[in-house]
Amino acid sequence: MAKPPDRDALGTPPLPVAGVRLAAAAAGLRYRGRDDVALIELCEGTVAAGVFTRNRFKAAPVVVAQEHLSRRQPRYLLINAGVANAGVGAQGIGDAKQCCGALARLGDVPVEAVLPFSTGVIGRRLPTDPLEAALPGLLSALSDDAWTDAAHAMMTTDTRPKSEGVSCLQAHAAAPVTITGIAKGAGMIRPDMATMLAFVASDIGLDAATAQRLLAETCATSFNAITVDGDTSTNDACVLLATGRSGVRFSALDDDGRAAFTAALAQVMQGLAQSIVRDAEGASRFVTIEVESAPDAEAARVVAMTVAHSPLVKTALSAGDPNWGRVLAAIGRAPVAGQIENVDFYFGAGADEVQVVAKGAAAPDYTEARGAAALAGTDVFIRIVLGTGTASARVWTSDLTADYVRINADYRS
Amino acid sequence: MAKPPDRDALGTPPLPVAGVRLAAAAAGLRYRGRDDVALIELCEGTVAAGVFTRNRFKAAPVVVAQEHLSRRQPRYLLINAGVANAGVGAQGIGDAKQCCGALARLGDVPVEAVLPFSTGVIGRRLPTDPLEAALPGLLSALSDDAWTDAAHAMMTTDTRPKSEGVSCLQAHAAAPVTITGIAKGAGMIRPDMATMLAFVASDIGLDAATAQRLLAETCATSFNAITVDGDTSTNDACVLLATGRSGVRFSALDDDGRAAFTAALAQVMQGLAQSIVRDAEGASRFVTIEVESAPDAEAARVVAMTVAHSPLVKTALSAGDPNWGRVLAAIGRAPVAGQIENVDFYFGAGADEVQVVAKGAAAPDYTEARGAAALAGTDVFIRIVLGTGTASARVWTSDLTADYVRINADYRS
Repeated sequence: MAKPPDRDALGTPPLPVAGVRLAAAAAGLRYRGRDDVALIELCEGTVAAGVFTRNRFKAAPVVVAQEHLSRRQPRYLLINAGVANAGVGAQGIGDAKQCCGALARLGDVPVEAVLPFSTGVIGRRLPTDPLEAALPGLLSALSDDAWTDAAHAMMTTDTRPKSEGVSCLQAHAAAPVTITGIAKGAGMIRPDMATMLAFVASDIGLDAATAQRLLAETCATSFNAITVDGDTSTNDACVLLATGRSGVRFSALDDDGRAAFTAALAQVMQGLAQSIVRDAEGASRFVTIEVESAPDAEAARVVAMTVAHSPLVKTALSAGDPNWGRVLAAIGRAPVAGQIENVDFYFGAGADEVQVVAKGAAAPDYTEARGAAALAGTDVFIRIVLGTGTASARVWTSDLTADYVRINADYRS
Repeated sequence: MAKPPDRDALGTPPLPVAGVRLAAAAAGLRYRGRDDVALIELCEGTVAAGVFTRNRFKAAPVVVAQEHLSRRQPRYLLINAGVANAGVGAQGIGDAKQCCGALARLGDVPVEAVLPFSTGVIGRRLPTDPLEAALPGLLSALSDDAWTDAAHAMMTTDTRPKSEGVSCLQAHAAAPVTITGIAKGAGMIRPDMATMLAFVASDIGLDAATAQRLLAETCATSFNAITVDGDTSTNDACVLLATGRSGVRFSALDDDGRAAFTAALAQVMQGLAQSIVRDAEGASRFVTIEVESAPDAEAARVVAMTVAHSPLVKTALSAGDPNWGRVLAAIGRAPVAGQIENVDFYFGAGADEVQVVAKGAAAPDYTEARGAAALAGTDVFIRIVLGTGTASARVWTSDLTADYVRINADYRS
């Protein structure tokens, strides 16, 4: 089942994770000529943790996945693209459970051991017949190196599959530990707990409480730190899976080992989150916004998100226009106390960083030419110093282009 | 000085207001071949009330206007377009006061009797020399029918001047009372107290406290109920002027008369606010969003604004696409408690209204064709029934088009 590497993939190549097998298939739910269903099989003993959308109108599969996860550890994750199974009333719950039940019978597991995930158009019923018809083929095709196939199968407006694979703990444990994740998402992205869909697996051993804590911690600085358009999806879900097959248990590690694993996990999560922003609908720039010297971390995050959501900042960035007045106005409208006289900000990174604003006005040696040069690349950096404290935050976003409008005006037609 | 009516004007024609004279001139501050400075002269005894941006980084003219207004009633309003006089540090305050001082000397009034207003690009110094050079010509050109000229002179990315004129109280007072207003604004519109610039004058007599109360009340359902892009400007200001020259005093009216004047004022304010949305940058649709049956008015407003700000809703509307799942997702992400099972919503108005969603899922007789027909016009209505209370709110917004992106990517080049 080995396949040539996907040249178009975003992130780093996935690595097989002992205890996890995957498969993808074309069920024809909405798209033609491509895979649209993915199956992830987990070995007995796998511990799962999930974070789900905070949108008050959760999609049916989110409701069912949360319910099933609260009852027992999963053995299968069933994922489809094209139809979100959201906004269809009680029928959506029934459809999701029916598919879980069909898979449970074929796999000889309790129905609660199947977690359903859907992404796509809201308001259409899930076509359960073709989905169920694809299940036997998926089960017989399971392999440990189909991560990229699964990442492909869950794409909607994504142009590229997104994966991260790392090997860690070589210096801290008896055996190396692998972490691999895949994600999808390109629009309706302002995760308020997790992003559209992300699945991260490791062969480390974790207890359920630790898995949930590590997931929440690393989500805060990855999926919860990105935004494309400020629209939180009804289907967001991020799942962390720990198979234990490496023989290494997190609880047996020393402090350095735990820190090393947490850092590796955070790296995978951030990589996936950043890949979503790099593939944002219509985007031509990848924008990093850092806010420093804020009264507290939440204030820093709110200021960064306010700048990240400003359509005027995003359109200026799409043109490489150093229109810093718009950045200043966005900082000023963020619901955070602050004095303009204390605010400095910068465009660009490292040695190419240019101070744009000093104490609320143009920096003495700032010129439009220097500002434009700092914004010329596809990776844009804005560093904002509020001058009112010591906390900081970092978020990632995309620019706003005419292509974004075109993609979203045309998405269903 | 009578001019042919401006066919392109939005709203209703301005009416002369006794006690108010205006003039416009081309000072060449930024634009060529058009007026860019307006002067409004107020008779002795005029009472003014103002509401100003809540952006924490107020522009220099806003700071100066608020300070002057707190000291005495104004005799002159000096307005320029092209340069916002924001984000220029302490220099901006000095520049604004210098222009006020020059006008005060020419008009023989205290400097605090001059209120400055600016709109345009942030971060550039106000060219005080050409502005001061235009003052003698402005003073000699003052007339009572130059409202539209003034509305023209303060335009930036606006394509059309905006005015409203009404005569009211015929049945309630010894003399009819006139209310006339002008406004500008097309982008960076999410007023958080008032919009870019709006000036509303009446020949009614008002005391200062009543003027401020009436202004705040009518702002809440007009300028504070519109959004184009969610970006609150640093320069927003709305001023209500009462000259008293009609001989009618608000305090002498009976309850019906007060209600009639308040309603007429609200009509002028809403007309101006709606004209700003109709002229929104790149907009092809005028969108009214009503939220009913909410737990309280603020919750209703927040839900309406969340839908109004959703880039996915706005792009769908630009294509006339009845993509109601995006509306549902936006309602769900609004920070307001609610159950999807209680939510109904509708596209279209009056007899053409179509129920789209009933109890959180597609309404039984809803079809895409009916939804598309309800969204086909340039005026779009969305009515959302939350089913959790009795409060309601109404906001107005525009769609999001590729032209919006183009205008804002090119604005400075």
